[in-house]
Amino acid sequence: MAVLFVNGKFCKDPRLVTADDFVFQGLNIPRPVNDPVGTTLTLINVDQLPGLNTLSVALTRIDFAPNGGENPPHLHPRASEIFLALEGTFFVGFVTSFPDYKLFTKVLNKGDIFVFPQGLIHFQVNLGKTNAVGFAFFESQNPGIIRVADAVFGSNPPINPFILARAFQLDPNVVKNLQAKFGNNN
Amino acid sequence: MAVLFVNGKFCKDPRLVTADDFVFQGLNIPRPVNDPVGTTLTLINVDQLPGLNTLSVALTRIDFAPNGGENPPHLHPRASEIFLALEGTFFVGFVTSFPDYKLFTKVLNKGDIFVFPQGLIHFQVNLGKTNAVGFAFFESQNPGIIRVADAVFGSNPPINPFILARAFQLDPNVVKNLQAKFGNNN
Amino acid sequence: MAVLFVNGKFCKDPRLVTADDFVFQGLNIPRPVNDPVGTTLTLINVDQLPGLNTLSVALTRIDFAPNGGENPPHLHPRASEIFLALEGTFFVGFVTSFPDYKLFTKVLNKGDIFVFPQGLIHFQVNLGKTNAVGFAFFESQNPGIIRVADAVFGSNPPINPFILARAFQLDPNVVKNLQAKFGNNN
Amino acid sequence: MAVLFVNGKFCKDPRLVTADDFVFQGLNIPRPVNDPVGTTLTLINVDQLPGLNTLSVALTRIDFAPNGGENPPHLHPRASEIFLALEGTFFVGFVTSFPDYKLFTKVLNKGDIFVFPQGLIHFQVNLGKTNAVGFAFFESQNPGIIRVADAVFGSNPPINPFILARAFQLDPNVVKNLQAKFGNNN
Amino acid sequence: MAVLFVNGKFCKDPRLVTADDFVFQGLNIPRPVNDPVGTTLTLINVDQLPGLNTLSVALTRIDFAPNGGENPPHLHPRASEIFLALEGTFFVGFVTSFPDYKLFTKVLNKGDIFVFPQGLIHFQVNLGKTNAVGFAFFESQNPGIIRVADAVFGSNPPINPFILARAFQLDPNVVKNLQAKFGNNN
Amino acid sequence: MAVLFVNGKFCKDPRLVTADDFVFQGLNIPRPVNDPVGTTLTLINVDQLPGLNTLSVALTRIDFAPNGGENPPHLHPRASEIFLALEGTFFVGFVTSFPDYKLFTKVLNKGDIFVFPQGLIHFQVNLGKTNAVGFAFFESQNPGIIRVADAVFGSNPPINPFILARAFQLDPNVVKNLQAKFGNNN
Repeated sequence: MAVLFVNGKFCKDPRLVTADDFVFQGLNIPRPVNDPVGTTLTLINVDQLPGLNTLSVALTRIDFAPNGGENPPHLHPRASEIFLALEGTFFVGFVTSFPDYKLFTKVLNKGDIFVFPQGLIHFQVNLGKTNAVGFAFFESQNPGIIRVADAVFGSNPPINPFILARAFQLDPNVVKNLQAKFGNNN
Repeated sequence: MAVLFVNGKFCKDPRLVTADDFVFQGLNIPRPVNDPVGTTLTLINVDQLPGLNTLSVALTRIDFAPNGGENPPHLHPRASEIFLALEGTFFVGFVTSFPDYKLFTKVLNKGDIFVFPQGLIHFQVNLGKTNAVGFAFFESQNPGIIRVADAVFGSNPPINPFILARAFQLDPNVVKNLQAKFGNNN
Repeated sequence: MAVLFVNGKFCKDPRLVTADDFVFQGLNIPRPVNDPVGTTLTLINVDQLPGLNTLSVALTRIDFAPNGGENPPHLHPRASEIFLALEGTFFVGFVTSFPDYKLFTKVLNKGDIFVFPQGLIHFQVNLGKTNAVGFAFFESQNPGIIRVADAVFGSNPPINPFILARAFQLDPNVVKNLQAKFGNNN
Repeated sequence: MAVLFVNGKFCKDPRLVTADDFVFQGLNIPRPVNDPVGTTLTLINVDQLPGLNTLSVALTRIDFAPNGGENPPHLHPRASEIFLALEGTFFVGFVTSFPDYKLFTKVLNKGDIFVFPQGLIHFQVNLGKTNAVGFAFFESQNPGIIRVADAVFGSNPPINPFILARAFQLDPNVVKNLQAKFGNNN
Repeated sequence: MAVLFVNGKFCKDPRLVTADDFVFQGLNIPRPVNDPVGTTLTLINVDQLPGLNTLSVALTRIDFAPNGGENPPHLHPRASEIFLALEGTFFVGFVTSFPDYKLFTKVLNKGDIFVFPQGLIHFQVNLGKTNAVGFAFFESQNPGIIRVADAVFGSNPPINPFILARAFQLDPNVVKNLQAKFGNNN
Repeated sequence: MAVLFVNGKFCKDPRLVTADDFVFQGLNIPRPVNDPVGTTLTLINVDQLPGLNTLSVALTRIDFAPNGGENPPHLHPRASEIFLALEGTFFVGFVTSFPDYKLFTKVLNKGDIFVFPQGLIHFQVNLGKTNAVGFAFFESQNPGIIRVADAVFGSNPPINPFILARAFQLDPNVVKNLQAKFGNNN
């Protein structure tokens, strides 16, 4: 039978549900960080953890490279977030919406939390000289992640560079260059 | 007495409500377009139209300059949108979220509508040689607007340019240059 | 395989989604108006536009006959509405609920918008001598439309006329006469 | 200090809340029925019972006159309903929305329940020769009640009778006559 | 074809829906009460009444044995409740959450209603010398019922008795004894 | 001016908001554990962190005493939870609702997460010989905590012991003894 797609997910037959549907293991294990911005995302949403279905919670482990490894400006289209600084020192911030575009920032030490409202662009940067780790908690089983540079310059297919050149006040050749870089990331 | 701020807005005393609380006039009148990207936004949300309070609807008139005037890559943190092409021909698109960042685009003619899901980055560009007009309808009394370039490069105060340089794979001086341009826009 | 019905709609397989799922064309084209009250509804909800699924937006184009063509007293059971007067001059109004049943009315000119709260009975009437056009935007993918006279006097099968006679303080023969008229409309 | 109006209601200071805020007494006592349609509504929503605030429940006791006393065609703009036939035999029904306007009806005996979906026009009629009583439960602290005839013909001020004449395919003088009757009811 | 499980329930094909999908009969008939605590629950949710699907309402008839028959401390994880004292006199109460755990109680006579907020532990006890009957209405199609003693001491399989001994400050043998009693109830 | 209470919380004047409204510090610092069940809760909801207002997120740090220190059977009336095992090894479980009361359990090691659905009774127990720490994340700004034993046996004022004796099948003197113990805890 063909796969069916519904709003959210199909629920498992309740008689077949086990405790394993509610657990995800090994989030203490460091992940290698190889991307140019210096972070690795381990997203646990309803796709990885079926028991989240209908429950409005999800979580991401974020590993940061040292010396400015960053979770670059990004947003979650369907959830607000609490960020927990587990290991390391972070510079974090978010920008409010039109027309003020006000930036709120804070330095977080180990054990501090910070709140990022739904849909606002925000970032976290590792200020330390060693790897750092944070956890992001979301109030949605499928919050979504949009890294702004990836979406704008790395979409598939690319956005017409003349549109981006005008939007970002950049030379079209600079845009094409960015698209080449970010296109490779995906 | 000091102003109070609550979730949403205070409701007016029902005995004092009049029909004027539910109307906004003159959205047929063209607005001048002077900004560099070539669009003027006329946002009618609960701040302009008190009768919207608690009703989950709002609307924007968008005036586009000719020859590529664009509503540049932006998003609405709290609402999905229907865009109605009122006058002109448009190139529109949106990008899905991580990890696919898939771009969906379409040419819209007068009388066409297009749907933009909540929180996704999208744009509309005037393909014609004359002014164009669109209406964006939202399912929130306060959908919010975040133009990506304004939020990232034009925040107040600016984001540390070294963070943006790494995030966008740009030379820090290019970032500073962009911040100078977009900071002036706000 | 038999058709399945779920809350809302099945989502299409994401890999098969195209930009066409998010577009509906030709809402600028006038529709003929032939019904006795003088309006034609072109409703674009999730049935016509699959990309609306889960997004809480929908839209109706309303064509009005000249000289009092009306979108007669009706309501939307699952959404509030913004009405945009696109062409023409309108007399619009809504009635609040028990016990006040207060009527709020306004004359709208081209480019004016008016808000109708969810579930309240409201109407729009073309005051001009030529055809008029409005757009109604809804904060639901399936707002529903209930024209009061059609539902009360034109249901299928008809409501017992003695019930309606008492409810509307009408002679049962007047009710039967109305049921004959409205039954033919459906 | 002036009264303030917010979405919903102000919450009482939690330290001052008592069990009395959660109770309403005497709903077993028959209410006299004097109106022409033959029902008396005793609505207990957040205005009568402060403890309902934020809890999404409300209730109405409905007393029916014998021999066809009816809760005439009406709707609740913000809630679905369960109707419980407490005493008596009822004929109940609701009409679906455009374009089908399908009528579903049932005879209810003492102890039967029936469900009326949000915003749909429905009615209950006492089929017995003695008084009857029902309870309607709502999933909102403020469901709202709109009796169609009262809203359409008894609004304050009245709707222009020529609009109603066309909408209901009635002679304007019949409409004016109805408005005189229903205007007196409010 | 295998049964499918979705969020909520599948909707019936609208063309096959009948009035019977919206009715449940015979809730006036007394139910025998045989359990040790002295109540019988007749829960009508979306499983018993398909027309409740998507409508956020459900209902329970509760039959109470005389002389202290009780609906013991319990909660509804997904709905607030209105309790209607149909026949008899009741002692009812609920306890607020951490840290206050404040108890609110009231004596209800026939025709009184009481509100129990979502998720709070509450109870109803028959103070009379004859059977009593109440109705509980919920703002969910599937509110859920959790009797505290059944969940804690009667789960399947049992909770480790040493965990419960510490939690309830009871001797482990008392816990095992309770588990033997409540395990038999399920 | 008297304090006002609204649904949720008043929002701060946006012009006065600072980054400090979005941060809470020092959640890495171990809390002493002195209560008999062996856990200390550090709840960060909208009362401690004003920036959570309207954002549907909150968090608790839980410190566990060694050798069976437990977060005893409890529930959250307004939110589902993700539990993150930060330090230590845990035995965790939850019980489904009537009529199955099925127990799902799992041993969690450092770095594992487990999901607890809204309103269900659940527990976490430290299996190790040293202190343990977990974080519970909630999808509500005010999830609420109800420890079953505290609410049932430690309410203020106490529940009539004869009601609890019947509900829990305990001798009334055992109940009174429990009430003495748990009443002292509050």
